[in-house]
Amino acid sequence: MELLPVLDGIHSAETFHPAFLDAFFERVAQLESHPEEFEDALKGKVIATVFEEPSTRTRLSFEAAALRLGAGVITVADAGSTSRAKGESLSDSAKVLGGYADLLVWRHSKDGASRLAAQSTGVPVVNAGDGRLGHPTQTLVDLHTMRKEWGTFEGKVVGILGDLRHGRTARSLTWGLAASGASILLLPGPGLAWEGGLEERILSRFDYRRRPVSHALIPGWTGSSEAWLLEPRSFIQGQLFQGGPSEISSLDALYLTRLQEERGARQERGSYPGVNPARMEDPLLSKCLLLHPLPRRGELPESLDGDPRMRCFNQARFGPVVRQAIFLALLREDAWPLPAVTPMPAGEVEHGLGPCPNPNCITLEEGIPSPWRVVGKRPRSFLCAFCDSSLPAEYVGCLSTRRVHPLHSASAEKIRAENLKPFLAREQAEVAGFAWGG
Amino acid sequence: MELLPVLDGIHSAETFHPAFLDAFFERVAQLESHPEEFEDALKGKVIATVFEEPSTRTRLSFEAAALRLGAGVITVADAGSTSRAKGESLSDSAKVLGGYADLLVWRHSKDGASRLAAQSTGVPVVNAGDGRLGHPTQTLVDLHTMRKEWGTFEGKVVGILGDLRHGRTARSLTWGLAASGASILLLPGPGLAWEGGLEERILSRFDYRRRPVSHALIPGWTGSSEAWLLEPRSFIQGQLFQGGPSEISSLDALYLTRLQEERGARQERGSYPGVNPARMEDPLLSKCLLLHPLPRRGELPESLDGDPRMRCFNQARFGPVVRQAIFLALLREDAWPLPAVTPMPAGEVEHGLGPCPNPNCITLEEGIPSPWRVVGKRPRSFLCAFCDSSLPAEYVGCLSTRRVHPLHSASAEKIRAENLKPFLAREQAEVAGFAWGG
Amino acid sequence: MELLPVLDGIHSAETFHPAFLDAFFERVAQLESHPEEFEDALKGKVIATVFEEPSTRTRLSFEAAALRLGAGVITVADAGSTSRAKGESLSDSAKVLGGYADLLVWRHSKDGASRLAAQSTGVPVVNAGDGRLGHPTQTLVDLHTMRKEWGTFEGKVVGILGDLRHGRTARSLTWGLAASGASILLLPGPGLAWEGGLEERILSRFDYRRRPVSHALIPGWTGSSEAWLLEPRSFIQGQLFQGGPSEISSLDALYLTRLQEERGARQERGSYPGVNPARMEDPLLSKCLLLHPLPRRGELPESLDGDPRMRCFNQARFGPVVRQAIFLALLREDAWPLPAVTPMPAGEVEHGLGPCPNPNCITLEEGIPSPWRVVGKRPRSFLCAFCDSSLPAEYVGCLSTRRVHPLHSASAEKIRAENLKPFLAREQAEVAGFAWGG
Repeated sequence: MELLPVLDGIHSAETFHPAFLDAFFERVAQLESHPEEFEDALKGKVIATVFEEPSTRTRLSFEAAALRLGAGVITVADAGSTSRAKGESLSDSAKVLGGYADLLVWRHSKDGASRLAAQSTGVPVVNAGDGRLGHPTQTLVDLHTMRKEWGTFEGKVVGILGDLRHGRTARSLTWGLAASGASILLLPGPGLAWEGGLEERILSRFDYRRRPVSHALIPGWTGSSEAWLLEPRSFIQGQLFQGGPSEISSLDALYLTRLQEERGARQERGSYPGVNPARMEDPLLSKCLLLHPLPRRGELPESLDGDPRMRCFNQARFGPVVRQAIFLALLREDAWPLPAVTPMPAGEVEHGLGPCPNPNCITLEEGIPSPWRVVGKRPRSFLCAFCDSSLPAEYVGCLSTRRVHPLHSASAEKIRAENLKPFLAREQAEVAGFAWGG
Repeated sequence: MELLPVLDGIHSAETFHPAFLDAFFERVAQLESHPEEFEDALKGKVIATVFEEPSTRTRLSFEAAALRLGAGVITVADAGSTSRAKGESLSDSAKVLGGYADLLVWRHSKDGASRLAAQSTGVPVVNAGDGRLGHPTQTLVDLHTMRKEWGTFEGKVVGILGDLRHGRTARSLTWGLAASGASILLLPGPGLAWEGGLEERILSRFDYRRRPVSHALIPGWTGSSEAWLLEPRSFIQGQLFQGGPSEISSLDALYLTRLQEERGARQERGSYPGVNPARMEDPLLSKCLLLHPLPRRGELPESLDGDPRMRCFNQARFGPVVRQAIFLALLREDAWPLPAVTPMPAGEVEHGLGPCPNPNCITLEEGIPSPWRVVGKRPRSFLCAFCDSSLPAEYVGCLSTRRVHPLHSASAEKIRAENLKPFLAREQAEVAGFAWGG
Repeated sequence: MELLPVLDGIHSAETFHPAFLDAFFERVAQLESHPEEFEDALKGKVIATVFEEPSTRTRLSFEAAALRLGAGVITVADAGSTSRAKGESLSDSAKVLGGYADLLVWRHSKDGASRLAAQSTGVPVVNAGDGRLGHPTQTLVDLHTMRKEWGTFEGKVVGILGDLRHGRTARSLTWGLAASGASILLLPGPGLAWEGGLEERILSRFDYRRRPVSHALIPGWTGSSEAWLLEPRSFIQGQLFQGGPSEISSLDALYLTRLQEERGARQERGSYPGVNPARMEDPLLSKCLLLHPLPRRGELPESLDGDPRMRCFNQARFGPVVRQAIFLALLREDAWPLPAVTPMPAGEVEHGLGPCPNPNCITLEEGIPSPWRVVGKRPRSFLCAFCDSSLPAEYVGCLSTRRVHPLHSASAEKIRAENLKPFLAREQAEVAGFAWGG
């Protein structure tokens, strides 16, 4: 079994864990209170920002962060002018740029690209946004904005409203909130919920449960009277066990996102969910902070800019300092060590699960096999180690017993992770020399 | 009356005054003689250059200035890649970028954009060129080029030749020369004079007068035998009071500009006014410095590059050091204070003068009301506080007496500035509760 | 005779000489072993990278080099946004940018552009790639990669395979290898040899000879069973004098290049010469390093990435440090002097050889005369001093004797360089007052 090396850098909010987040935001606080101490922290280092999809805002936020630490910056702001346009693979590009810079910040239109770049080069890579892995550094910015208000996420309820399907930030933020212990109210616009499996992974990873809730505001947002709350199982709530949805009684923050039209999202004019001054009068929202990763359209009107609950420009302002902390964590672990992000389990490269079923996966563009990684327990799921899409495994073999079992069987659950070998079909396993184990 | 805050930064050459200019060019001289003392003057600062219209030359001049002071630079060189392309307002963009950088340099195709950006954010904004406010930092470069030759502008005559209508630099330079005490010979190409009102504002602001002059070279330039000189009223010249134009006898510098085709200017081939080696033999031009903001076309041929009067590349060379002084003035007033530029009078936001009549005004693009400011005395003029276009006020009310008067009446002149309330029509004022005051 | 000034900077690998290369690579070694000593070597300096043809890789390599020395960087990454798009000449652009920066790195689509830029401005210019002068800084990178392996080039044989006609790097590398004393095996793909005259100039400059060789691998690469080796005349080899080609017995490195489709090169699918794992089994290639300037296509497959002979990513990694040494050589000769590159002989501007016959020469775009320089002895060749194309001189006059001789005559050979005056035709010389000298 050939394993992928641990992928260095920040690729997905899935790897954030409580100890990392606590230490990270302590570092951000130091940067905020004593910026002058860090002016030369990365002197002599060079950071490359590579934006194969344009995103001026995110790019400049990273670059300002690098410059404020004394690093130099080299930039690819425009995909059209890259060597990739001359037919170069992402892997080659990453190897070359990793020879020029000490750290690569990469935004790419293909899912899993930052992990592939990290695997190809010897320097850390930071994901500046891709479709499925999301936008983990924005999540750190978002969490920081709320932490500064509340200190802790314990008992807090954060709603995420809008285009969950295409939005990168909503996906990542949900991981980050779960790692922080908050309850999450998911409010996707009609037809804009995310694909199956993501919620289950979050629930399983953080010991959360999913509970139906209701409120008079919800139908105007989601087109349905019912919504779902993801919350820590450790919460004891009486009405939990009574079947129907309970009325939601508090919302501490509402995170709005724009309809991602550039990723194919469509919505009838006026039907996209948002807030407005009248709706903000509802008692549910009386202390509800308003967040938005920007740019915004009509979902968060400028008439609310003077509202004391508005925080979207706070988020923007915190962008550079949060990214300074990321750079310090990755480039100066000597002087400012942080607990590592959870390393992604290594994937197996040689396998028989076929190409990744996600047509936007970087493995298809690069013409390389899709390695898998395994998550969950009952049942186990096999995901593309680059893009996190579910791979169509139906059977699992055990490398120790040389027997093959159905994925959803008790026998399959007992196989130790390092002995797993997934198959599409029973025949495939038998050809590979695995006996039927039932 | 809700007032606009004072707009921080450099937006228009109209705000330059003699004390500011004297102190400013003293600072430039220090930078020229001791550059090494300023190498770290802006260490730890980040300056953003945002060019929504491309202008490589201007952008690089600003960036070189920032780097030579030790600042970091973040750049938007290409409008197409900005969040604005995703539908963001200028106001939102400015708020976000002002959270990343300590100062914003902004070029925009809409008139008044830099003032709106400055109003939206908490950091200084420098106008790097817009249609109507002109190009104030280029004017400081141009003035510096001439000051280095002459020491003072007293008694100097500077001709401005070419496309005054569309050119940003000519407009700004005229304000700068008037603030410096020079006489200005306006030589617009046929159909390329600027819109009404601008000259009157300059004459009124600096106690200048307008006097007809003539010279044999002039018809070849302007298509008319007569031209106008703007000069300080304090000049005593006998022939002044004799009616017809007097022959112009000296020209100390000639400022040429390119036909601004990208802004819709058209001219028959060969008819655009310029100089050539033969014309430079005319005694009027014997000591006449040749300036041009570049890029040039045929109006200033390369065959003159060796001419001892040529100064266009001196201007280019002075670009960075002059912009260094601007950055120091705005970011290091602690260590290197300068007299402030004249703050623009605040405008009133709530008013009944309708949308700004200038179709290129930033207020129309942003969908916001056009605030007014008032200039002049007899009569007063109401201008859009963002783009400086004349607003169609015909009546003025007095907030103290609650009476309304015709704009051109003696009563209107007597109203104190803080009590002014302009109206489009008498009925509009009466509806608002103002009695007719005649 | 009006002479061109010596062109400051790095324009062509033709000017590299052994003493320069030895000292240069010693400087590179210092930079590699003690990078921290050079962190502030260019503090306060500004370097401009001007890429009128996009080349992200080369641009970022230069920029990383500048930043690692403490210099600031200003960039034109996109030709479309330059003042040149507003109709400015290269000469004007260079004058202006030379007023902003201490050194210009310039890539341009026209041949000879970097020399013209250098002539126009007072600061050094580094050629970052043009069609005919090649890509001299890439050559320094390539030579460094091989020197690190071998210490010396004495007795080494380097093959250059692929698109010699359109490739910039192959052309420059051949000059660099000859200056280093290596033997060069030229392996152009079918129809992809370079234009006449280049080999002759190399042979003449470095006292090399051209000798036919053969090998079983060669027909698959070049479509012919015979290839040519350029080698120092000082080599004594018995079979040399025996007529037919001798079998080549060693190849120490193979330099592959991509088909330059963006410069009009076309090749039938699959017929472009390259290597693959099977071919690498050939004993001739047993210790043969594989180099490629990247980006690559199929000619150097990724399946060879783990091969111990592969060096293409070493080259990429050495890009910045080699360019650091270039910047130090040009900007800090006070502290880190190097032997100068061979100055190009000055050209004569006023002449009667007509416009440069190379349709891609910068002189045609700029509308300026093509100055000549003279190379070789028997016969002399007159080249465009900007683009190195052969000019059609058939007769040469002597400014001292005022006689004119056929170019290929013994009398012509005796004229001292400073007295040369080339003519297209005998009549032209006679009209100019030269008597026929036979």
